[in-house]
Amino acid sequence: MEVNEALNIVQPQLTKERFAHTERVVEQAQILADQNGVDQKKAAVAAALHDYAKERPLRELRYWITHSTLPKDLLTFHHELWHGPVGAQLISSEHGVTCPDIQSAVYYHTTGKPHMSRLDMIVYVSDFIEPGRAFPGVQDIRDVSRTDLLKAAWMISSHTIQYLLNKQSRIYPETMYTYNDLTLKVQQRKQANSI
Amino acid sequence: MEVNEALNIVQPQLTKERFAHTERVVEQAQILADQNGVDQKKAAVAAALHDYAKERPLRELRYWITHSTLPKDLLTFHHELWHGPVGAQLISSEHGVTCPDIQSAVYYHTTGKPHMSRLDMIVYVSDFIEPGRAFPGVQDIRDVSRTDLLKAAWMISSHTIQYLLNKQSRIYPETMYTYNDLTLKVQQRKQANSI
Repeated sequence: MEVNEALNIVQPQLTKERFAHTERVVEQAQILADQNGVDQKKAAVAAALHDYAKERPLRELRYWITHSTLPKDLLTFHHELWHGPVGAQLISSEHGVTCPDIQSAVYYHTTGKPHMSRLDMIVYVSDFIEPGRAFPGVQDIRDVSRTDLLKAAWMISSHTIQYLLNKQSRIYPETMYTYNDLTLKVQQRKQANSI
Repeated sequence: MEVNEALNIVQPQLTKERFAHTERVVEQAQILADQNGVDQKKAAVAAALHDYAKERPLRELRYWITHSTLPKDLLTFHHELWHGPVGAQLISSEHGVTCPDIQSAVYYHTTGKPHMSRLDMIVYVSDFIEPGRAFPGVQDIRDVSRTDLLKAAWMISSHTIQYLLNKQSRIYPETMYTYNDLTLKVQQRKQANSI
């Protein structure tokens, strides 16, 4: 699948504003792919499709989680977490996108997961730092992402847990496992570099 | 077992400073037990025994985790997490304390767990707020504990995750499950009270 094809698939699914966000995520993902030795086209297609299910009605997202192999505990957490896993299924069932690397990047772009591939990290990071984002702290992560994809992903996972604590919200286990995994990897790399 | 007997068991295991801490936790636990309809003697005994294994050498704690049914993932996390679970075993094997309520309170006094009993919460909270503690934010939790044990426990679980994020340390899963469980319970109670 070409990037333009992916964008054409996704455009009718999204508001103008979210489609503009998606286009910025695609551009950001292409930059990070180039910097990190990842297939640019694959990264761009995954980025294009990451919010495919974002504007489906909640009842439809709930239906797909209920009537699929997706983990049911998603339903007891914030619905913001639903569109990634459902999107990974819908790009396959509605458009035949069965590439597991792309499906994984779409599935985990909100929570992350332990042992993310570089492609997973590129979509996770690009969604967070694309130029339209203006969270407190995002510029630091943007700066780090220019030279260190792993550390940028780790900063995002920590930022996400901090955000949930501030909101007094529960933490989805996958979000914490992601933070723990990235914390360990950043520490191990630091130790390896200091030997 | 009487409180004095528990204190006599524990005194030779601890430095003077930590034994003084233990005595303050016992007093705090008695106050919270009285306020929350929990057997004062049981709370005092559990509080007396909570740090029973705290000053065992790390190699001994590691040995007990390795050669028991305790979860092995403890060994991949900070050793501060080891003395509760090992202590719960040692008070049984070395002193015949097999009361599951007391063992649970000792086991989980550092991490908490989902669905803590009131006794579990009393030891978890007392350890954190006894008058010798001077963490930032501890006075707020002390104030809340006077009328609301559940909310005090929830504040501690949130504080603990915040502390780990600030240290850039991993979060033991049980610590996060505790926070999630208490967050849900505090929210559900608030909703029930507003109906």
